[in-house]
Amino acid sequence: MFKTNQYFDGKVVSIALESAEGKATVGVMEAGEYEFGTDTIEIMTVISGALTIQQPGENEWKTYSKFESFQVEKGVRFKVKCSEDTPYLCLYK
Amino acid sequence: MFKTNQYFDGKVVSIALESAEGKATVGVMEAGEYEFGTDTIEIMTVISGALTIQQPGENEWKTYSKFESFQVEKGVRFKVKCSEDTPYLCLYK
Repeated sequence: MFKTNQYFDGKVVSIALESAEGKATVGVMEAGEYEFGTDTIEIMTVISGALTIQQPGENEWKTYSKFESFQVEKGVRFKVKCSEDTPYLCLYK
Repeated sequence: MFKTNQYFDGKVVSIALESAEGKATVGVMEAGEYEFGTDTIEIMTVISGALTIQQPGENEWKTYSKFESFQVEKGVRFKVKCSEDTPYLCLYK
């Protein structure tokens, strides 16, 4: 039985799983801008479309497309923008 | 707001979305064997781990790994096996 979580009034929905690569969530974000906090190192992979990311302490935004990944450090906050429903995988390390 | 669906007593959970590539679901299957029916052509992509597929009318099973895709025709039933929680993307064409 999988646990589903909603964030930002349901604009981000995810399903928790124990993947081949470890603890993970697979989810979707609606078009918008979001700020997330990390409890572990997170490795996010874009499954379709693109995510534009602002890493903590940086001014620049960087865009990641289908099957591209980025890592965010533990215990930080980071910003994510997308322009359409964007599915992603998040691994917790 | 995303719609979440459960199948097989919650062993398969998916989230419906309108992706960059069209109508889609992103979801997860628990370890097990499942039979699905298609209402449209479906293009499934493995996000982590592997899915082993039996196409309709075939005896052989074929395994698809991370980021590999397979297509299933409209109006058929096909079988899927996996040996751990396996996230996938399904596009409806």
